[in-house]
Amino acid sequence: MLHNEGFHALDRQECLRRLAKVPVGRVVYTRQALPAVLPVNFSLDADSSVLLRTSAGSGLVHAIDGVVVAFEADDFDAAARSGWSVVVTGRAAVVTDPAEHERLSRVGPRSWVVTRDDVFVRLESEMVTGREVTGAHGAA
Amino acid sequence: MLHNEGFHALDRQECLRRLAKVPVGRVVYTRQALPAVLPVNFSLDADSSVLLRTSAGSGLVHAIDGVVVAFEADDFDAAARSGWSVVVTGRAAVVTDPAEHERLSRVGPRSWVVTRDDVFVRLESEMVTGREVTGAHGAA
Repeated sequence: MLHNEGFHALDRQECLRRLAKVPVGRVVYTRQALPAVLPVNFSLDADSSVLLRTSAGSGLVHAIDGVVVAFEADDFDAAARSGWSVVVTGRAAVVTDPAEHERLSRVGPRSWVVTRDDVFVRLESEMVTGREVTGAHGAA
Repeated sequence: MLHNEGFHALDRQECLRRLAKVPVGRVVYTRQALPAVLPVNFSLDADSSVLLRTSAGSGLVHAIDGVVVAFEADDFDAAARSGWSVVVTGRAAVVTDPAEHERLSRVGPRSWVVTRDDVFVRLESEMVTGREVTGAHGAA
């Protein structure tokens, strides 16, 4: 649906504004040479990086620490054939600085489930793209 | 949130049942050596493959025809810290058989926007995984 006509691009500020309004996005990465995707709750830091919280021993951390990943969030209304999506592409890195970890423990995202040995992962918002479809064209 | 405890796996049939209930998913692939993701509306074919419809000349078709991709759909309730996600991993291929194209023009997904030179892309559901988080653990 969102491949050519019928949508328009969102600028970086608008993308970040929309990202801030949704609780869940999806980390897109490579695992064992295959495309992989995992929904996560997240928050945006003051520098517009995306913050995740997970277990230090998780497969996700192993796969993405130090690697360029994509992060996607969206909101669609199928009945109206409208909605938007934003993709952040940038390097992921576990937060290793103790003071920063402590700060994020207060202001960063909270886990939805019980985790052990929590770490925060920061995704730099090096490239931020987004688009909106306003729908109702109803092409067959 | 979905990385370790607090969630349970969904079997293939349950994954497909849930996929059939949502209109939009996300194709996960590689573009210019970077992870990429694009939301699309879709439908499931009788053989449980995922069907997309897009323009023959789209960047998506160029990137995924003949390639193994992932396809993700989910539904979360942030207030309840619950929800589910399903990931289909398999080979994508443009439908080139004219009879099959004609059949899908009748029963396949409809584009949300105006497209030209429509093609259908089939994603084989070679690997289907899913999980559900029932939330409310509220771990810090």
